[in-house]
Amino acid sequence: MDQVYLEDLPLSQAQERFRQALEHAGMAGILGSETLPLDEHLVGRVLAQPVWAKISSPHYHAAAMDGFAVRARDTDFASATSPVTLACGVQAVYVDTGDLLPEWANAVIPIEQVEALDDQGRLAVNPRSPASIRLRSAAVPWQDVRPLGEDIVATELVLPEGHVLRPVDLGAIAASGHTALVAARKPRVAIIPTGSELVRPGEPLLPGKIIEFNSLILAAQVLGWGGEPVRYPVVPDEIEKIRATVAQAAETFDLILLNAGSSAGAEDYSARVVQELGELLVHGVAVRPGHPVILGMIKRRDRSLLPIIGVPGYPVSATLTGEIFVEPLLARWTGRRPLELQEVEAELTRKVVSPAGDEDYVRVAIGQVGERRLATPLARGAGVISSLVRADGLLVLPRGSQGLPAGARVQVRLYRTLEEISRTILALGSHDILLDLLAQHLAQYDRRLSSANIGSQAGLIALRRGEAHLGGSHLLDPETGDYNRSAIRQYLPDTSVELVTLSHREQGLMVRKGNPRGIHNL
Amino acid sequence: MDQVYLEDLPLSQAQERFRQALEHAGMAGILGSETLPLDEHLVGRVLAQPVWAKISSPHYHAAAMDGFAVRARDTDFASATSPVTLACGVQAVYVDTGDLLPEWANAVIPIEQVEALDDQGRLAVNPRSPASIRLRSAAVPWQDVRPLGEDIVATELVLPEGHVLRPVDLGAIAASGHTALVAARKPRVAIIPTGSELVRPGEPLLPGKIIEFNSLILAAQVLGWGGEPVRYPVVPDEIEKIRATVAQAAETFDLILLNAGSSAGAEDYSARVVQELGELLVHGVAVRPGHPVILGMIKRRDRSLLPIIGVPGYPVSATLTGEIFVEPLLARWTGRRPLELQEVEAELTRKVVSPAGDEDYVRVAIGQVGERRLATPLARGAGVISSLVRADGLLVLPRGSQGLPAGARVQVRLYRTLEEISRTILALGSHDILLDLLAQHLAQYDRRLSSANIGSQAGLIALRRGEAHLGGSHLLDPETGDYNRSAIRQYLPDTSVELVTLSHREQGLMVRKGNPRGIHNL
Repeated sequence: MDQVYLEDLPLSQAQERFRQALEHAGMAGILGSETLPLDEHLVGRVLAQPVWAKISSPHYHAAAMDGFAVRARDTDFASATSPVTLACGVQAVYVDTGDLLPEWANAVIPIEQVEALDDQGRLAVNPRSPASIRLRSAAVPWQDVRPLGEDIVATELVLPEGHVLRPVDLGAIAASGHTALVAARKPRVAIIPTGSELVRPGEPLLPGKIIEFNSLILAAQVLGWGGEPVRYPVVPDEIEKIRATVAQAAETFDLILLNAGSSAGAEDYSARVVQELGELLVHGVAVRPGHPVILGMIKRRDRSLLPIIGVPGYPVSATLTGEIFVEPLLARWTGRRPLELQEVEAELTRKVVSPAGDEDYVRVAIGQVGERRLATPLARGAGVISSLVRADGLLVLPRGSQGLPAGARVQVRLYRTLEEISRTILALGSHDILLDLLAQHLAQYDRRLSSANIGSQAGLIALRRGEAHLGGSHLLDPETGDYNRSAIRQYLPDTSVELVTLSHREQGLMVRKGNPRGIHNL
Repeated sequence: MDQVYLEDLPLSQAQERFRQALEHAGMAGILGSETLPLDEHLVGRVLAQPVWAKISSPHYHAAAMDGFAVRARDTDFASATSPVTLACGVQAVYVDTGDLLPEWANAVIPIEQVEALDDQGRLAVNPRSPASIRLRSAAVPWQDVRPLGEDIVATELVLPEGHVLRPVDLGAIAASGHTALVAARKPRVAIIPTGSELVRPGEPLLPGKIIEFNSLILAAQVLGWGGEPVRYPVVPDEIEKIRATVAQAAETFDLILLNAGSSAGAEDYSARVVQELGELLVHGVAVRPGHPVILGMIKRRDRSLLPIIGVPGYPVSATLTGEIFVEPLLARWTGRRPLELQEVEAELTRKVVSPAGDEDYVRVAIGQVGERRLATPLARGAGVISSLVRADGLLVLPRGSQGLPAGARVQVRLYRTLEEISRTILALGSHDILLDLLAQHLAQYDRRLSSANIGSQAGLIALRRGEAHLGGSHLLDPETGDYNRSAIRQYLPDTSVELVTLSHREQGLMVRKGNPRGIHNL
């Protein structure tokens, strides 16, 4: 077997190489469009053609109130002391809101503002069908009328190409005379998990076996980004099977995500499969996590090309590969802008060490403690999916940076809104299952608990530094036999804190009844 | 026919009355839950039960690199000059990334860092199955090992109840040993359009007829907020038909949106239908637009209750009624937090007049011109759906306010991201279809054009005040016969501007060939 080596290509170069190959394959823009009847499910779809108004809205001069349509000039000299009387049918016609104005009318007088009279000049029994109406003030031309085109004028631009549809847009498109729209078609994405160690959720889980859930994350990402994902069954680490599956998928999909086997191990066949079925553009990008990513183009039977992305196996790497490579591709293919996360400044609570060669994606928890917005780096391992679940944001260290000291001011890309972060209680210190119960409980009170296990002392120090709302502590004073009080006096001498005992923990050894082996210590 | 009168209830009181009625009906919390197999379509669903980890992840000590599993202490004194050799099978075992560590091992040495030897002590042909390995540095216990529970520890809280699922959450739920989750069931919402004047998109559109598209907007909103909408066909303004349709829908839905007939006109039957089928709680809320809203509870055959909302007919009112009343209800019923729009400060460019009695929802365009963030009120009419399409945000004037002067600093709820707004070019002044073409063109260059037709002079004045990027002007100087130059000199004497002629317009009268009627002027 040939040894496969990983490159270390800077991200921007990898993206550029990929972009050129896509352009060469005629896949740099939207993949195609389809005409779809107006429907509530079109929200999120991207317009592939601008919408120009076919008709005006309103498409006629419409009454904006229930009342009487009149010629404004007929009312010109009406006043409280010298009212004007208009004959119904000729000078005044009752209209409901939305009704067409007679051609000769140019104003509506609300029904509450007229005296409706019968043919004897008395107040009419039915104020909506009087013989005449009496007015005590003049009407202004076009008062209480929605003139033709008030909302939309025929031929005007309602929405531009590339617009991502919202509920209200669908209304405006219907109002402008359309029954359908032209949207970018959804890119079809095949997600192929490979690996003999993978089992599906629920299958027996022996040591050495791993639950396959990357395809679930990738499929959910693709759905949210406007693609149409199909998850393949797991393909074992056999190059023939992988090659056959990829070749078959290439015939019907626009993009293949091959996960994983993208590294350079003994059973990492992805790069070879891409080479054999087309062209390997990139093998290894200088990002962390996500380094062993593959970008390539493969050939269909009709010699047309499609891209393939070899997605690294660790779940954090796989998820970030989705964000870095798949999302912009789906944006381009549907004609919308790539998603951008809001960026805010925060203060780093702990130092971050980073390999200088890679662009480093550090997941951080963000907390607002008093006036300070604090970013705490979470577990760095590419296998720690919970770090992404907990992450409030992403700190990207550029290539060349070897890290940052505690206290550094950094730009963080937010996964949550600032409002959500402001509702978050930061608990640092010793961990206990009780904090999980507390988190569950606080959710009902509209508060989020974000906790990190950094040990009792570090928790108290974080409190002193104003870097946490809550410090979990279980420190025994061996002299007094008392818990926490002496430690608080020592670490937080000048800080006013409230000490709440959430639980008493008893630690010990659990042994068989009667302790047959006589275990008394470790 | 009884006259129906509209109340003028403050929003908070209306909401409170509705909340109490829902509580009384046992519909204040989530409507129910369902167990769903893990699937990419669950993104956006709300957890109705917390997820506690069933298993740890990894569920065994796993190699984090391709290499050799060893006991760290066996390598203790290895150095460059005095290497240590370990016998394979007993002291060292080859492992791929993710493989189970032998029970006796507690570290992995990456394959690149060992010398793999055959049984003669020479470099082995296959470095993955040597007879022994030689090391020139000591291993640290647990190096390159992913210890059991590194990511998730069995019994810990993975996600709390009420959490809205994202792609990465699905991965974490699978990783923690689940194959399904318990989500709040989707509320079923019937959307019933009423009105004899309504026609469906595409049907012949005579004067006085209106295209029914509110149901489309409401259904799309309900979908996005986690409900299951069903759009009914249009019911004509006949009270028996409306009553029968509502009574039938009540049997299978959780919420009915009756649109419209919610006002107090001759053919506004909604309030009466609600009264006849249950209880009319609120008829008329002091919000604008959206005043004639109805809140009520109606009774099913089994005497259980469900809410009904009479949605006003004007599309802006209908859309805002969705945002104000339907969204929080669906949030409550699915157990998630209500959506909140980001609020930012902006400077009002024009004065706003508001009726003191109502909470007033003013749609605004927001523009960033230099350092200033400017909010320009858009068309106020409740029928102007394009004002919502164009709106970048919502300015809410509280009850009691009679308006605000130009220059006032206001808080605006954003419909778009600030980033999107910063890419927006504000064009004020005279309008021309060319601006629409320009908007379409600019979309390709990642710029949004937001234009408002306020006339040529006002456009130039806006430029002078630094309230627009671009001023559309077609002002003739009658003395010179020249366009725009003199006006620019007059209105922008000290401002450096660039004058671009986009088009020459010729205005005139289009008459039949030969002008048979001899029309020569207006």
